[in-house]
Amino acid sequence: MAGSTFGTLFRVTSWGESHGKALGVVVDGCPAGLPLSEEDIQVYLDRRKPGRSRYATARSEGDRAQILSGVFEGKTTGTPISILVSNEDQHSKDYSNIADIYRPGHADLGFDKKYGFRDYRGGGRSSGRETIGRVAAGAIACRILALKGIRVTAYTKAIGPVSCDPARFDADYLKESTLCMPDREAEERAQAYLNRCMEEKDSSGGIVECVITGMPQGIGEPVFDKLDALLGQAMFSIGAVKGVEIGAGFEAAGMRGSENNDQYMYPDSPGNGPSTPDRYHPDTGSQENSGRSGLDVQHSDNENAPMKMSNHAGGILGGMSDGTEIVLRAAFKPTPSIARPQSALASDGSVRMIEIRGRHDPVIVPRAVVVVECMAAITVLDLLMRDLSSRLDW
Amino acid sequence: MAGSTFGTLFRVTSWGESHGKALGVVVDGCPAGLPLSEEDIQVYLDRRKPGRSRYATARSEGDRAQILSGVFEGKTTGTPISILVSNEDQHSKDYSNIADIYRPGHADLGFDKKYGFRDYRGGGRSSGRETIGRVAAGAIACRILALKGIRVTAYTKAIGPVSCDPARFDADYLKESTLCMPDREAEERAQAYLNRCMEEKDSSGGIVECVITGMPQGIGEPVFDKLDALLGQAMFSIGAVKGVEIGAGFEAAGMRGSENNDQYMYPDSPGNGPSTPDRYHPDTGSQENSGRSGLDVQHSDNENAPMKMSNHAGGILGGMSDGTEIVLRAAFKPTPSIARPQSALASDGSVRMIEIRGRHDPVIVPRAVVVVECMAAITVLDLLMRDLSSRLDW
Amino acid sequence: MAGSTFGTLFRVTSWGESHGKALGVVVDGCPAGLPLSEEDIQVYLDRRKPGRSRYATARSEGDRAQILSGVFEGKTTGTPISILVSNEDQHSKDYSNIADIYRPGHADLGFDKKYGFRDYRGGGRSSGRETIGRVAAGAIACRILALKGIRVTAYTKAIGPVSCDPARFDADYLKESTLCMPDREAEERAQAYLNRCMEEKDSSGGIVECVITGMPQGIGEPVFDKLDALLGQAMFSIGAVKGVEIGAGFEAAGMRGSENNDQYMYPDSPGNGPSTPDRYHPDTGSQENSGRSGLDVQHSDNENAPMKMSNHAGGILGGMSDGTEIVLRAAFKPTPSIARPQSALASDGSVRMIEIRGRHDPVIVPRAVVVVECMAAITVLDLLMRDLSSRLDW
Amino acid sequence: MAGSTFGTLFRVTSWGESHGKALGVVVDGCPAGLPLSEEDIQVYLDRRKPGRSRYATARSEGDRAQILSGVFEGKTTGTPISILVSNEDQHSKDYSNIADIYRPGHADLGFDKKYGFRDYRGGGRSSGRETIGRVAAGAIACRILALKGIRVTAYTKAIGPVSCDPARFDADYLKESTLCMPDREAEERAQAYLNRCMEEKDSSGGIVECVITGMPQGIGEPVFDKLDALLGQAMFSIGAVKGVEIGAGFEAAGMRGSENNDQYMYPDSPGNGPSTPDRYHPDTGSQENSGRSGLDVQHSDNENAPMKMSNHAGGILGGMSDGTEIVLRAAFKPTPSIARPQSALASDGSVRMIEIRGRHDPVIVPRAVVVVECMAAITVLDLLMRDLSSRLDW
Repeated sequence: MAGSTFGTLFRVTSWGESHGKALGVVVDGCPAGLPLSEEDIQVYLDRRKPGRSRYATARSEGDRAQILSGVFEGKTTGTPISILVSNEDQHSKDYSNIADIYRPGHADLGFDKKYGFRDYRGGGRSSGRETIGRVAAGAIACRILALKGIRVTAYTKAIGPVSCDPARFDADYLKESTLCMPDREAEERAQAYLNRCMEEKDSSGGIVECVITGMPQGIGEPVFDKLDALLGQAMFSIGAVKGVEIGAGFEAAGMRGSENNDQYMYPDSPGNGPSTPDRYHPDTGSQENSGRSGLDVQHSDNENAPMKMSNHAGGILGGMSDGTEIVLRAAFKPTPSIARPQSALASDGSVRMIEIRGRHDPVIVPRAVVVVECMAAITVLDLLMRDLSSRLDW
Repeated sequence: MAGSTFGTLFRVTSWGESHGKALGVVVDGCPAGLPLSEEDIQVYLDRRKPGRSRYATARSEGDRAQILSGVFEGKTTGTPISILVSNEDQHSKDYSNIADIYRPGHADLGFDKKYGFRDYRGGGRSSGRETIGRVAAGAIACRILALKGIRVTAYTKAIGPVSCDPARFDADYLKESTLCMPDREAEERAQAYLNRCMEEKDSSGGIVECVITGMPQGIGEPVFDKLDALLGQAMFSIGAVKGVEIGAGFEAAGMRGSENNDQYMYPDSPGNGPSTPDRYHPDTGSQENSGRSGLDVQHSDNENAPMKMSNHAGGILGGMSDGTEIVLRAAFKPTPSIARPQSALASDGSVRMIEIRGRHDPVIVPRAVVVVECMAAITVLDLLMRDLSSRLDW
Repeated sequence: MAGSTFGTLFRVTSWGESHGKALGVVVDGCPAGLPLSEEDIQVYLDRRKPGRSRYATARSEGDRAQILSGVFEGKTTGTPISILVSNEDQHSKDYSNIADIYRPGHADLGFDKKYGFRDYRGGGRSSGRETIGRVAAGAIACRILALKGIRVTAYTKAIGPVSCDPARFDADYLKESTLCMPDREAEERAQAYLNRCMEEKDSSGGIVECVITGMPQGIGEPVFDKLDALLGQAMFSIGAVKGVEIGAGFEAAGMRGSENNDQYMYPDSPGNGPSTPDRYHPDTGSQENSGRSGLDVQHSDNENAPMKMSNHAGGILGGMSDGTEIVLRAAFKPTPSIARPQSALASDGSVRMIEIRGRHDPVIVPRAVVVVECMAAITVLDLLMRDLSSRLDW
Repeated sequence: MAGSTFGTLFRVTSWGESHGKALGVVVDGCPAGLPLSEEDIQVYLDRRKPGRSRYATARSEGDRAQILSGVFEGKTTGTPISILVSNEDQHSKDYSNIADIYRPGHADLGFDKKYGFRDYRGGGRSSGRETIGRVAAGAIACRILALKGIRVTAYTKAIGPVSCDPARFDADYLKESTLCMPDREAEERAQAYLNRCMEEKDSSGGIVECVITGMPQGIGEPVFDKLDALLGQAMFSIGAVKGVEIGAGFEAAGMRGSENNDQYMYPDSPGNGPSTPDRYHPDTGSQENSGRSGLDVQHSDNENAPMKMSNHAGGILGGMSDGTEIVLRAAFKPTPSIARPQSALASDGSVRMIEIRGRHDPVIVPRAVVVVECMAAITVLDLLMRDLSSRLDW
């Protein structure tokens, strides 16, 4: 395997299975001197914790983070930070009946073929619980980025066929939204849709959008470790992601160069409302201000600094940040575990009808929001640290 | 920087600028014993060479590959293979006027901010010519994969608003198509669209689709080095890519679990035509056969082996191959270099109107097809080699 | 930091401080299917456990290994194996008086200068307790190597001025030796020497020798990841090591080519007693047989296979194993913590006289033997796994 | 293989065989803005060039470095620097007779067993010519270190039984010495010894010592990427190295803690002549001043700063630099290629008598001096760059 580590300088190593004794993460390379408590991490873990709404699995886990190393007298020491979360509410017997079946849409077949057998309890290593380690590590990354003026915010952009409307973006509502949607109307419709899915023993997919503000310019390492390339790896490494877009994404494929190129203008020029791709602005709810905030990072002392008139690039050109907002989207497939009868391949090569029992989320998108945020933060922080040696002036 | 290397066991290090003396690649970790000649590499390089149609830059480069090391008596030795391509037709003076300008849609700003200055000639390191190294390395990877029965095929899925129709898939036509489109009708419309773009001094984006057949099961390393995660990095590392999808991609976000889950059935069951996501089947043009070929890799001795009834997963579950066809798509933005007047940021912070001269492709998608193929091949081969130690039975 | 991970395919990430809550390791990339219990690891941990003789620190730790992930139904699953050992007997207050002092021979100054402050309790991350993670990981590596017929054996070669005599090598005695010396006479003198050191509040250095038998040929990756290069890194990564030798080591520098070159001969030729560099042969106590056993790995079916007449190369040529025994030695400096008064630099730049209290080993070499063994095993296993893709015949 | 890359942020990828078309290196991650010309690199290459004395191979190579990328308008751009040296004077036919023989002391057997066959011409990849790439990369590293006040100096410490005497250290003589020895008397004896070796168709080993001055404190990454651990890997990666020592090295194993611990004192205290391990001081020839120069890096404004009274640690404690001189030694085995008859293993398993023809160095140590210097510089620079993110204050 040896695929459980991410990052070059800020290195995250995740471990643990759904129904093992515990899950956790080792963060190696965290700069020294960061104030850090278990509560700082808990805040993030609580955002992905199950059992908080009827749209999430009923599994009840405390998911309490313990910091076992790397912090002394309340500050990071520069040595590896080991964080552990115990598994408590394990119903392993729920899964014994699927030991010989490859559940549709799950990693079961791959694990069996690769390793010869698998820990089938709750999906084992491929369980969504694996993301606990990522979130704990991401909580640390987010705190460091915040000190550098960089803020990562993700939210539910769509659930099934229900999309948020950028014109109704409501940052305050986002804070209380059950489904992490910044549009009250859309959320109501999404809940109705999810209720119908649940009645029909079915599940839904959705889209998470993530915005990163305050980025310095030039972050990202050409050629293979471009900012978007590593964000792409980070997003696709999340279990159910089947598509990733930066900025205009697939829409850019249908555009012309003259449309897609982001041009710059002076703020007092006529007709200056910057047009960004369809998305929300969590900080302000306003596209104009939000569009500028990215530039202001670089030109905060200059009222008359030119501004980017659109953001089809999603803040990344040539694999490096251009100083404006980074915008990315990840498409999540519907939860594969559904109670409806399905035909599935069995390990003996036969096909069997199965009904999946156990406690499963009808949609994972709201709980995945914090995972997207954390993976984006880890990626950006690592590249920020790698950038320090780009020039000789250190 | 230190971002010019890709792969863990099959390691590709790319170097070179558009208008430097040469470009090239070092491939470290290529298994010994592979018959390899410069002509084997040339075949792939010729597919990305400029000047082959009116839809590509008029720059004329021989792009002759020289193998400088790692091959002895016609076979790879296991030591690093260094491949070099000289730059010949350099018009550096075309670019001196843009030394102080950040061209819209280009990496210019990032390079200047990151490194303090840049080689502005032809985009320097961010030029499309950088992909020469990837293609040379990919040619090697493709040859090895072919020996293992794995075939990587990419083609133009869409140019601007013109998409190929899966029902008209024509593998033979693909071989002669100017735009690498496997649908003659669509190509005619695409050419008309491109002609219009060129008349209007504009450019077009597009989509490349890539299909990998013959994959063994279980390839890909959970958690962060999933097959789709590394394919995502590989695709987003290509200059103009703004979106990547696996299988159903963003469509999956709108589906229900019962729709999206790929189920298995016996081939003689009624109503068995497998439904795959909208895409082409280059090998056969037929979905049924193509759908089976993936499974046949594993069950070639069994006429009655169960078959996957759809391929929304795109051949990847839990980050590992499931033995069926891998399907991915990459969205390319339109060529940013257009002759139309545009407003651009200058290095002194001012905004200036520019018209970009030089020789530029009105669409890069057809030439990017082989780059997608090569990056996919490199990714798959590396993971195939990493998989060798997954079990104790070596 | 980000320096706590070792290995490419068999990847070991160590974490933990001397007086934190726990120490541990994550082993990523362990092949699936290995029978593994906590007891298997405990056997190795017990060999480095303190408090077993009067020549080791009196700190009393259970050092019980808990496996938290990666093992299911008694076998490794291929997913990361997380192993944790709790710290129990912490006397943190012993150390508060040295918070502002850089103890001679310790890492204190480096940690303070690098990170701005340090966890000074018991040396924090630079404590010998950090090796717990290495030993737990090494226990796994040793078990896998054993299945492949490879055996790693280390022992105390010298303590202070007292060296073992190869002519008195006694494999049986090694098993019961307090100081891990395979020469009873030498050990008696070494004990007398250590007693004198302790009376004088002083400490002793020593040498560990490590022999690896059963190696296949061709293991090691030219150019930078040579077998000896990575063994060198592995050995120097152990806290107190100041010198490393392979085979004849520094003696080779004084030799001529005609002496140092290891020649081959048929076993029935006259004058065939192979001369090896001065070291012990743990398996047999006899140089002749031992010299052959290395070759027998390759030629076990051939009584008349040629044999290497000496082993100045230490089993490694050009960075690759030659199929004979690998022999390496690591020189350990004396324990720097001594109760004698010493002058030391303080964090305020002044010089102060200090007497170090606490519980310290008068010599660490006997406890380091298992650490050397484990680091050698991890290195060899990783390179063995990397070798699998060297040729196309997989 | 995939073992031809060294470094994390300053990454060096070496390629090429002795009798291929060319050899070279790609340096990825070099900070932008360094003035760099081909001549800067040539100066270092000339120091390892053959044919400069009767004690080196008569092979005549221009060894002219060409920079193919990564430098624009005389400065590094931050992109990969590709450097190529053509092979000119190839006498491949000299080697055809050893295609089936494993030359004693060479890598032949390993390459054949690992890869199935080998490029036997001149040792192929395992030739000393492979170090050309290292030296070209090291030349760049040395220039950057010089800008940071860090100086790496290596010299011949011993040839066969002839050692330099620290009391006769002569920095000026070193510059003109044929054998890179800083002791005229020792060199004369060494030359006499080498003449005798050559008459007897034999070869000699030797020791290179390397001193690094101007090191900041705290460089090196615990636990596995310690400064000494990576220096160890770097040194053992050089073809003929069989032993490496830091500071007191193997002597430390025989010392007591009270002797080996380096203590600090005020410069005006009585009896302050610091005692260092037996080695040369290239900068000054004087141990006192040299001992201080290391500290002065940190305390240059303070006449009364405490000084380290000895340097048994060799400037490294806990894997991090302590701000004083780093001292390391590498033991080189004698050149294995000798014209004397030797018995060797053949690829068919038989033993044959051979006499090696061709042009070989009777001792490689003088030409290896610059290789040691360059590998040390690459290692230190990479760790210096990795250190930039150790604290939050960037």
